[in-house]
Amino acid sequence: MNKLLIISQEKEKYISLFEQSDLPDLEICHDLKKADIILADPPLIKDLLSQLKSVKWIQSTFAGIDTLIQPHLRQDYDLTNVKGIFGQQISEYVLGYSIQYFQHFQHYAKQQNNKEWLVHSYSSLSEKSMVILGTGSIGCYLAKTAKALGFSVSGINRSGIPPKNSPFNQVFHISEIKNALKTADVIVSTLPKTEQTIDLLNIDTLENCNQAILFNVGRGEVLDNYGLLNALTAGSLSHAFLDVFNNEPLSQECPYWHHPNITITPHIAALSFPEQVFQQFSENYLRWHDGFSLLNQIDFDKGY
Amino acid sequence: MNKLLIISQEKEKYISLFEQSDLPDLEICHDLKKADIILADPPLIKDLLSQLKSVKWIQSTFAGIDTLIQPHLRQDYDLTNVKGIFGQQISEYVLGYSIQYFQHFQHYAKQQNNKEWLVHSYSSLSEKSMVILGTGSIGCYLAKTAKALGFSVSGINRSGIPPKNSPFNQVFHISEIKNALKTADVIVSTLPKTEQTIDLLNIDTLENCNQAILFNVGRGEVLDNYGLLNALTAGSLSHAFLDVFNNEPLSQECPYWHHPNITITPHIAALSFPEQVFQQFSENYLRWHDGFSLLNQIDFDKGY
Repeated sequence: MNKLLIISQEKEKYISLFEQSDLPDLEICHDLKKADIILADPPLIKDLLSQLKSVKWIQSTFAGIDTLIQPHLRQDYDLTNVKGIFGQQISEYVLGYSIQYFQHFQHYAKQQNNKEWLVHSYSSLSEKSMVILGTGSIGCYLAKTAKALGFSVSGINRSGIPPKNSPFNQVFHISEIKNALKTADVIVSTLPKTEQTIDLLNIDTLENCNQAILFNVGRGEVLDNYGLLNALTAGSLSHAFLDVFNNEPLSQECPYWHHPNITITPHIAALSFPEQVFQQFSENYLRWHDGFSLLNQIDFDKGY
Repeated sequence: MNKLLIISQEKEKYISLFEQSDLPDLEICHDLKKADIILADPPLIKDLLSQLKSVKWIQSTFAGIDTLIQPHLRQDYDLTNVKGIFGQQISEYVLGYSIQYFQHFQHYAKQQNNKEWLVHSYSSLSEKSMVILGTGSIGCYLAKTAKALGFSVSGINRSGIPPKNSPFNQVFHISEIKNALKTADVIVSTLPKTEQTIDLLNIDTLENCNQAILFNVGRGEVLDNYGLLNALTAGSLSHAFLDVFNNEPLSQECPYWHHPNITITPHIAALSFPEQVFQQFSENYLRWHDGFSLLNQIDFDKGY
């Protein structure tokens, strides 16, 4: 019998999903020492890692597992994350805010308050280009939906090679980032936090942008604070939509809260819906149970 | 030599586009009596119709030409409108506001003002259904983009027959409107004003809706005021996004301005971009010049 420990803000929900499921040879366990399989929110399991005596596999309920990839933390277990369920949500977030911005929805809301009838001209998304950092499953999904709404879409990745069945009009090598960002009306970072991505968007890479709007829906550490504020002041960026931050919740002292050209959301662009997470866990458990390799396994060296 | 009269709020722009063009046997004319071809905003030409002594063809700069379809107005000329250029804009409007609504963007804007970090759960567009009244070029374009963002999409038209290359999951006959609207999370009217569409959305057709949000991007007269307010009070509609009204600009006395569940925009969901309008006019002029039939000709009896 395998023993499953659940450590999550959504624990109740996951237990209920487990009870409705019919996973063979698996039972709920509340003992850190005895559990061999863990379904967990990375920030909640991190400080408990050393107490796990029988752990073989941790299934993260998040896409982002950087909390668990730190040199002083153990790596003697299989770590998997969830994939392929966030593209839809992130597309809605990026496209919704893009339209709100370019079509002046907030101006119209103010006008309604003042009973004002005044038309503001705008240009359609079909005349705009989006550059997406990261060409993984989220980047590809976003590229596909953005194209359906008229954008021309480029990607940036470490190889410069388009992904399989690429939805991108073109893919740039990371070394060309400055030239790539120059062409963008909308920049979206979907990047995870790794040694290579920390502060990738900085004063140097952002200074030649062309009044673009910037989305960070990956990890806060990819965007350098000073570079961002400088680009907003200089006008190379017009607006930033930030859903992720170095420290969450964002501190009350952060100057972003009242910056007129920054929109803040509380890490909601890709909520983990327990139903979808549990479905991926179930599929993975059945593979594990039957001796097949796990899906979405993390390479501790690469960090993703 | 054909004589072109331009009557539009964008007259300067159209004259400049004419000057950059190279349309054969056509010259600008400022004399109402002598012009045989008119490029005009319908509301501006309406009261001048009786003064046109040589008119053969009026190309409307708008999609909506109901201003010119009235029993007491002359109909002894060819009337054409513009088509196929509004689908993109209307899609951006409907999808942008839908995402803003379902993803709680306005809540997050208020929270940012208060430096609040609080997550609101939501469900994705991929679990929602859209019902579009009108399966013409605008309805079809919207259906296609809404499907790309995950919606299941139904149409309603007079025949119940899907249009050619239909993007709709299903098409309802207008007689089934109450059953169709019941299934919708999002209702969009793209309908023109005709005898058949006036007050089509009324207390009876709206009362069984299932907490839907409603968009009117066609013509104000399709939506009955009393029916709308009743449905919002009863909760069969959750919110209405209104871009068109019986009288525009909307009067200062209208109760819609400060209704918490009504969003008002000043007829901007489908702005006529002069470049696109002039391109359609040019194409039509060349057909006319060469003796071919005009595109997008209006049937005065049908009213569209």
